[in-house]
Amino acid sequence: MSHNTFGHLFRVTTWGESHGPALGCVVDGCPPGIRFTVADIQAELDRRRPGKSRFVTQRREPDAVKVLSGFVPHEDGETLVTTGTPISMMIENVDQRSKDYGEIARQFRPGHADYTYQAKYGIRDHRGGGRSSARETAARVAAGAIARKVVPGLVVRGALVAMGEKSIDRANWDWNFTDDPENPFFTPDPNSVPVFADYLDGIRKAGSSVGAVIEIVAEGVPAGLGAPIYGKLDQDIASLLMSINAVKGVEIGNGFEAARITGEQNADEMRMGNDGRPIFLSNNAGGILGGISTGQPVVARFAVKPTSSILSPRQSIDLDGKNVEVTTKGRHDPCVGIRAVPIGEAMVACAIADHYLRHRGQVGGGQSAVGGRQ
Amino acid sequence: MSHNTFGHLFRVTTWGESHGPALGCVVDGCPPGIRFTVADIQAELDRRRPGKSRFVTQRREPDAVKVLSGFVPHEDGETLVTTGTPISMMIENVDQRSKDYGEIARQFRPGHADYTYQAKYGIRDHRGGGRSSARETAARVAAGAIARKVVPGLVVRGALVAMGEKSIDRANWDWNFTDDPENPFFTPDPNSVPVFADYLDGIRKAGSSVGAVIEIVAEGVPAGLGAPIYGKLDQDIASLLMSINAVKGVEIGNGFEAARITGEQNADEMRMGNDGRPIFLSNNAGGILGGISTGQPVVARFAVKPTSSILSPRQSIDLDGKNVEVTTKGRHDPCVGIRAVPIGEAMVACAIADHYLRHRGQVGGGQSAVGGRQ
Amino acid sequence: MSHNTFGHLFRVTTWGESHGPALGCVVDGCPPGIRFTVADIQAELDRRRPGKSRFVTQRREPDAVKVLSGFVPHEDGETLVTTGTPISMMIENVDQRSKDYGEIARQFRPGHADYTYQAKYGIRDHRGGGRSSARETAARVAAGAIARKVVPGLVVRGALVAMGEKSIDRANWDWNFTDDPENPFFTPDPNSVPVFADYLDGIRKAGSSVGAVIEIVAEGVPAGLGAPIYGKLDQDIASLLMSINAVKGVEIGNGFEAARITGEQNADEMRMGNDGRPIFLSNNAGGILGGISTGQPVVARFAVKPTSSILSPRQSIDLDGKNVEVTTKGRHDPCVGIRAVPIGEAMVACAIADHYLRHRGQVGGGQSAVGGRQ
Amino acid sequence: MSHNTFGHLFRVTTWGESHGPALGCVVDGCPPGIRFTVADIQAELDRRRPGKSRFVTQRREPDAVKVLSGFVPHEDGETLVTTGTPISMMIENVDQRSKDYGEIARQFRPGHADYTYQAKYGIRDHRGGGRSSARETAARVAAGAIARKVVPGLVVRGALVAMGEKSIDRANWDWNFTDDPENPFFTPDPNSVPVFADYLDGIRKAGSSVGAVIEIVAEGVPAGLGAPIYGKLDQDIASLLMSINAVKGVEIGNGFEAARITGEQNADEMRMGNDGRPIFLSNNAGGILGGISTGQPVVARFAVKPTSSILSPRQSIDLDGKNVEVTTKGRHDPCVGIRAVPIGEAMVACAIADHYLRHRGQVGGGQSAVGGRQ
Repeated sequence: MSHNTFGHLFRVTTWGESHGPALGCVVDGCPPGIRFTVADIQAELDRRRPGKSRFVTQRREPDAVKVLSGFVPHEDGETLVTTGTPISMMIENVDQRSKDYGEIARQFRPGHADYTYQAKYGIRDHRGGGRSSARETAARVAAGAIARKVVPGLVVRGALVAMGEKSIDRANWDWNFTDDPENPFFTPDPNSVPVFADYLDGIRKAGSSVGAVIEIVAEGVPAGLGAPIYGKLDQDIASLLMSINAVKGVEIGNGFEAARITGEQNADEMRMGNDGRPIFLSNNAGGILGGISTGQPVVARFAVKPTSSILSPRQSIDLDGKNVEVTTKGRHDPCVGIRAVPIGEAMVACAIADHYLRHRGQVGGGQSAVGGRQ
Repeated sequence: MSHNTFGHLFRVTTWGESHGPALGCVVDGCPPGIRFTVADIQAELDRRRPGKSRFVTQRREPDAVKVLSGFVPHEDGETLVTTGTPISMMIENVDQRSKDYGEIARQFRPGHADYTYQAKYGIRDHRGGGRSSARETAARVAAGAIARKVVPGLVVRGALVAMGEKSIDRANWDWNFTDDPENPFFTPDPNSVPVFADYLDGIRKAGSSVGAVIEIVAEGVPAGLGAPIYGKLDQDIASLLMSINAVKGVEIGNGFEAARITGEQNADEMRMGNDGRPIFLSNNAGGILGGISTGQPVVARFAVKPTSSILSPRQSIDLDGKNVEVTTKGRHDPCVGIRAVPIGEAMVACAIADHYLRHRGQVGGGQSAVGGRQ
Repeated sequence: MSHNTFGHLFRVTTWGESHGPALGCVVDGCPPGIRFTVADIQAELDRRRPGKSRFVTQRREPDAVKVLSGFVPHEDGETLVTTGTPISMMIENVDQRSKDYGEIARQFRPGHADYTYQAKYGIRDHRGGGRSSARETAARVAAGAIARKVVPGLVVRGALVAMGEKSIDRANWDWNFTDDPENPFFTPDPNSVPVFADYLDGIRKAGSSVGAVIEIVAEGVPAGLGAPIYGKLDQDIASLLMSINAVKGVEIGNGFEAARITGEQNADEMRMGNDGRPIFLSNNAGGILGGISTGQPVVARFAVKPTSSILSPRQSIDLDGKNVEVTTKGRHDPCVGIRAVPIGEAMVACAIADHYLRHRGQVGGGQSAVGGRQ
Repeated sequence: MSHNTFGHLFRVTTWGESHGPALGCVVDGCPPGIRFTVADIQAELDRRRPGKSRFVTQRREPDAVKVLSGFVPHEDGETLVTTGTPISMMIENVDQRSKDYGEIARQFRPGHADYTYQAKYGIRDHRGGGRSSARETAARVAAGAIARKVVPGLVVRGALVAMGEKSIDRANWDWNFTDDPENPFFTPDPNSVPVFADYLDGIRKAGSSVGAVIEIVAEGVPAGLGAPIYGKLDQDIASLLMSINAVKGVEIGNGFEAARITGEQNADEMRMGNDGRPIFLSNNAGGILGGISTGQPVVARFAVKPTSSILSPRQSIDLDGKNVEVTTKGRHDPCVGIRAVPIGEAMVACAIADHYLRHRGQVGGGQSAVGGRQ
């Protein structure tokens, strides 16, 4: 885990600022022979793209991805086949004109990383958030689109489960609804749409912002991925989710709820299934025990803070150490958590792909089983 | 971040099982010239040692640490001075006799990593938890004792803030009380002791267990540590806290609360202080913005699940794939979260030490400041 | 050190094949505030560019570099200032049309990596060498151009000291001559030019090829860079030089000669200099003792094999396991070692830049000195 | 590759000084289910142990290894079975009394790392070479003994092929002779023993020392290990061989000879073998093309400089910056290259084990083959 790289065998390096010519990523260590299309990646990028509803920022970026290396073209003219060499992907910034940032260039916006960049580097790119721009996450999503294809049978999906004071009703959970065109929130609960819409319209019109909680569920994760101590699967998922802009908390399985209950309530009991694999009678563990996957769905949640770009004037300081009032102009996401859903999916997919390869490296392809077949 | 190693410049590798001859760690990358004593390290180890009250497991291990390399003795005969070479520390297991584990050796205890070890490796050390034993955390605490000395002025303290259904009153917070000999819980609230004691006695007598929430606060962290994207300070803290046995959730600053509030409520405003450094009017960010420290206290919390070693019989399966009932005998911690306090401190100290060296590597020793002095 | 990344703090990831749309690199961990121009990087790229004399391949590629991220523009309109975030550089392939490779696509050229790629990945990009194309080294040179600016006062130069059966006369060494426009060989010995020219014309006209030995000298390397055991400066230089295509041997200082002489002849004696730094009376060590720089010039040499692309028919096999005769058509470098000079310089510059930051991380900026001033 | 750790999946961390209580290593990432005995490891250690003939240092250290973790005992009472968790091994120093080093403690011995340690760290352990003691290599040999068991069918052997001005006759090469009890030199040429003995006796009696060249050959390396660019198998072998104390040069295959010959002479031709694998008609490549193993024997050579511990007085400086004359007393190896043979084998075995796991991680266990069977 380096500054702009994550992963051990499935390694992703991202680069780029929002106002430079382009941004992108290099995916290294991908197995050879994996087939994908540019459209596969573009589809994931389109899910996080701005401008799709009144509830997300109206900045218009087509976010068209180019794949620059790491493949040979298949004879069908559309499919790309990985060769095992690094896959470089790039997204050009269509509007990179440096507008006049005026005084904001010298002010530290509260809740943003302006001050800490200055404190660390003594220099910063103030244009549009620089490296901390949400646009960086497009590169993560592109990498995640490759990661999804590394583990056979893996399905990683995400949903927004709470927004500010409002939450979904889990009884209504419908995975088919999360990507419904009528659903601007990635919520799995159809009944929640009008509730969230009313609530967020109020936030938006007030020039305010609000946080959210996102849940990611990975199905088809084979038992045995991860490692006991510092290569825990849940540890790496937590690390990558926490690396997303504005994330302040991460849970695995029942998370903080586990701190409130007893061992009897918490430990997932097992019975033997007919297919030679255990059946767990609950999934408080979120599919991970001792850092290693159980074969159950892997479940993680993360909390996204409200964006600090709000209309209300805020007290701060500037580069000269003077007290100032900062007001953020322009249109922004009233709830940045919404677009964090595909980003969270990408992070979990990358973590699982990496551990899939790491497990295969240490232990080999096969898996041990109970029932005397080890 | 490898399977049994963490850190990039301040690197810690731990090894050992609870029933082997010993366990230990190697701390690599420590700066030269740092002075410490064996007693410094032993003092930290004694804080997490079992057997100190009726609320923790009665296993008797002296946990006496030996320092095997990486130092020259100071002429005072007690102080050790680091040379910049790897510091190897070892703790011998005094009672490593393999008792008869009987059928438990072939059973998968629910909520434990027994099944996942078997699924991953096809082999496991069933004696006392093997690598997943809580004893592994002694090595972390020893490493943390060194880490605390790497960053000048750094103070890392921890406290138990909730146990099962009971929580402290933050208005009573007293750091001096957390290590008080009359305080078996690391709680910062003196009034909470009888409440926790009554509650945990009930849990303990019922052969049950309960979870806890621990809060770690690091003061004296200079502004500028961390990095924007995948080397975020909060990311690495989350990763290391999640790597502790039984941890299911991690928060930075206000954590999940951030998801419920607005941008106005969440963003910490700033004023210029007299010492040329900003004053933050609140610390919802937990001392970290954009992955980089602000100079405020770094605040993290983590949720510890109840141990799955409980007296009640639980449904499970065994190595032959047969359904069984598992009962854990012997004495165990009714609340493993208590002893997680010094472990959490150690993890945060290690993360900060690593980022202190990484920052110095990339940017040099000095820090930029606001006020035209960059 | 991962598959397509090198360096620990100054990290370089390269990507791209010779017949894809582009190739490039991401330089991560560069200190902030470093000033450079696109022309600085282009100048280094031009030194390794093909087509500059009859002695190198005539493939025409402008190798025009674009810098895509990691900087803010200086107000002079030309200078770029690093921000500490990843620097992405890209070179587009101007002629990436897939010509008809015919049967060569299914044949394994002797001495090339065709067979091993197939054995490893089960798939390969046969177009122009794929990932093993010499074009990949352009990305290294671009990264090296940044590395040169990281260490104040560092000067890294290279020279061809032998070609096939011909060697230079070290008594004529003139650094000013290596980049002379009349010198197509990077030789430091003006007298060697006609010798090498005649010799290589013979090789070239015969459709043959020949190897070479390159020497790299880095001056201005502060004492103290490196580490004693597996982070040795000479180890990392050897690793990076050996990573260059076609390199089969690496030496530090007197290298293999050290195996032939006695301790009296080999150990460099020291006297105290007037500036408080030691004077070494010889430099058999090549500026490195125990893996750590002495402050003397760092000297490394590497052997480049003759390219296997030759006109003579060679015995081999094809993808179907049939015996075939392979003949390489088209123009190729008769001595690929010539263009390896700027590549070797880049590798040494990157290794030194990385260790400069690593040393600063562990030990801080200052250096200890002898003479009681530690 | 960190300061005291090498390897990516098969990772080795070593620690310890010659005059501390012990030294050792942690081997992380080893596959589970591998069987070994303490005697297996001890046998390798005994090969590099001092005191076996008059040609090596007479320091008496039993170098008895203890295995502290990472295994379960097999029921045969002798065999240990790896569990996939870190294997910690320790060798206690039997004689660690700090004798009076007197003025040598403040002098910088020419050709040793004394000055560079001081320049880097501002502090050093002057007792017996500290971290740079040849004793550190015992930990490498122990790790190598495990590595040898990771790759099925792998055989790694080494031989001394030159000592000072004397070389073996390759026509007499006999692998069975290298470990013959009558052979104090690891030479593969029985006829060379009296020649080396006479020569080295002269060196020894003069209080001088001499260098050597060692060759390592690994057989049973499957085709496909390594990676094209910065994860080259030859690169990692070169890196690890160069990390051995006193090594100044490394070659793969024909090495520097490749620089002197033509493409026709150098490229190894291929024919199809009856077993579906290619036959190479020569092995100039040393079993590696494009960084990836061909299936032929992997061949590497390295040059060891003469030890700088010699009886002749040498000019140097001391800690106070004063000019001094340094004389090394006590008994030392007249040719440290002899004992480098098992160390070189260990390094090559570790590099191959690591790449075996890395290959399996990225590509899976199976290998592609030519002949339409991919």
